[in-house]
Amino acid sequence: MMTPRVFNFAAGPAVLPLPVLEEAQRDLVSMPGVGMSILEMSHRGKFFEGVLAKTEADIRKLASVPDDYKVLFLQGGASLQFSMVPLNFLPRDGSADYVVTGAWSQKAVKEAKKVGGVKIAWTGEAANFNTVPAQGDLKLDPNAAYAAFTSNETIHGVEFKYVPETGSVPLVCDTSSDMFSRPLDVKKHALIYAGAQKNIGPAGIALVIVKDGWLKTRVDDPRLPTMLNYAIHADNTSMYNTPPVFAIYIMGLVMKWLLSIGGLEGIHAINQRKAAKLYAEIDRSGFYKGHSAKECRSLMNVTFRLPSEELEALFAKDAKAVGLDGLKGHRSVGGMRASIYNAFPEDGVDALIEFMQEFERANG
Amino acid sequence: MMTPRVFNFAAGPAVLPLPVLEEAQRDLVSMPGVGMSILEMSHRGKFFEGVLAKTEADIRKLASVPDDYKVLFLQGGASLQFSMVPLNFLPRDGSADYVVTGAWSQKAVKEAKKVGGVKIAWTGEAANFNTVPAQGDLKLDPNAAYAAFTSNETIHGVEFKYVPETGSVPLVCDTSSDMFSRPLDVKKHALIYAGAQKNIGPAGIALVIVKDGWLKTRVDDPRLPTMLNYAIHADNTSMYNTPPVFAIYIMGLVMKWLLSIGGLEGIHAINQRKAAKLYAEIDRSGFYKGHSAKECRSLMNVTFRLPSEELEALFAKDAKAVGLDGLKGHRSVGGMRASIYNAFPEDGVDALIEFMQEFERANG
Repeated sequence: MMTPRVFNFAAGPAVLPLPVLEEAQRDLVSMPGVGMSILEMSHRGKFFEGVLAKTEADIRKLASVPDDYKVLFLQGGASLQFSMVPLNFLPRDGSADYVVTGAWSQKAVKEAKKVGGVKIAWTGEAANFNTVPAQGDLKLDPNAAYAAFTSNETIHGVEFKYVPETGSVPLVCDTSSDMFSRPLDVKKHALIYAGAQKNIGPAGIALVIVKDGWLKTRVDDPRLPTMLNYAIHADNTSMYNTPPVFAIYIMGLVMKWLLSIGGLEGIHAINQRKAAKLYAEIDRSGFYKGHSAKECRSLMNVTFRLPSEELEALFAKDAKAVGLDGLKGHRSVGGMRASIYNAFPEDGVDALIEFMQEFERANG
Repeated sequence: MMTPRVFNFAAGPAVLPLPVLEEAQRDLVSMPGVGMSILEMSHRGKFFEGVLAKTEADIRKLASVPDDYKVLFLQGGASLQFSMVPLNFLPRDGSADYVVTGAWSQKAVKEAKKVGGVKIAWTGEAANFNTVPAQGDLKLDPNAAYAAFTSNETIHGVEFKYVPETGSVPLVCDTSSDMFSRPLDVKKHALIYAGAQKNIGPAGIALVIVKDGWLKTRVDDPRLPTMLNYAIHADNTSMYNTPPVFAIYIMGLVMKWLLSIGGLEGIHAINQRKAAKLYAEIDRSGFYKGHSAKECRSLMNVTFRLPSEELEALFAKDAKAVGLDGLKGHRSVGGMRASIYNAFPEDGVDALIEFMQEFERANG
């Protein structure tokens, strides 16, 4: 008998839609009409070419990606993007603006500094990253090679509710933890990237959407490794080397699922409802305390504390025992983190709220 | 009803062992005792930590990896290794020796030249890479930072039957297409790497085995992207960033299967038997002609020509129609290529031989 599925609140890799898993399982040994597993298929074969083309087409449809943007499927996660962005777009004697809203933007800054100049347009470090800046708080350099921000910080649970306005300076967004969780205005960005393993697929693949016109302005460095060159990947439709075939296939199934439930508008409505319920419970009695400022609370990663670390440990342990898994927060924030990505079922949120109420009654 | 499985002769991604696919399928929606898919699991969770540790332990057991070597699971395939090796080990004013036996070693040379000096210890280009050098043919520089070779060239079907002796110069081996197909003397190498998608797993992961002592001699370049630094991955047991969880899990199942059939000695005997049959058929009548010199014929990639390109096209088409898929050779060699990796079943080789005989009778 199958072990019953738990509610998986992990921050990533994270829960995937059940229909995606079921379809992948059904076809795993032998793809209908092909007679081999997707895990065994040549990336140059017709079937996978179809998978790749359909996945890209669905992404374009979902996010209304303009025709003059490339959609790339790369390896190395967001962590490699931290380096690829400056290696392709930051001249050694130039500088880029970085908005620092948490651990991930800090890591991006660290890699960019190896390549060229970095100016911090804003940082939330002093308040342990419990908020994001308003547009007016940003110190932007009109001569920056680009300006980079992180639309949602997984660890701290803060999320931009607007796209920063940077004038003629190209905007780069790390949207690893809220990609396709809400409408996305691609044309306000020069480059968008996301490690897939939170909202749009399994670990082992990153999605990049980049404007053609910006690609043409790449820093021409003959020493850049071929694998780190966006133009090479774009010119070879992500097939310069063997792509992560299975991860792209799963991402394709996730895109199909997103379209089936109403696209980005549809999933946004669901995500707003799930998050609103949970934040309402956090705010209800004062027993639980949210980490992030209300105006920038993440719809994806809900971070909260309990009155003591002992209670927090007990909460995580008791929750796990009733099938609410992965709630322990990151050590840099402490407390709890409920990651309720696109595929996280609403009844899992309801179950957590019920558990929170019981836990408060027993320990409050 | 499941589409019957074909015989998959593709060069990579390539056939996986059926028991691996069946176990992965069984557990794909909910891992027993965990209640979530391996595709959804946190890489920091206990289950995956166990998978990673067991996969590494089985690799160490299979290849008798000495304790002073690290085993790393990385993204970017062999193509990124072409850059990582020189970026970590080739000083800008130093030089490395490269043995060029085909398309893959050529690509490795191209990336190394971006980093430092390259000396070609031998090249088979003039004879379209139909052989590998004997030890005495190698022009080795005793001051080289390292010497690199490709143990098996997938495209041309040539394979080293010995490990080059390089004295005190560290030896680097790209063994992407024959990793774990035969006994491997790890301690003769400083670093061994392989894209997994031919013999040891799905696309989207590369395996690296590197000697601790050599890691300590890394070029200290403060501008090296963190993700390209072997030492960072070694210090973080391949968990610096989110690893390709599913690909590691599948690789673990492949390692378990290899151990179950007698380890590297066991699979080598099977591979020798499969290849010997097929080469005997190629040599039988003169209708088929092998591309590579007999003394370095690959046990993995069997390349052969027919009397005309028209017959080659017909051969590929007719073979596919009877469930022998992926036989068309690479354009740079032409003709046919039967990739018969570890997991390729012996009855598929028998079926190909029977088809070759029928095809010759009908078209010879």
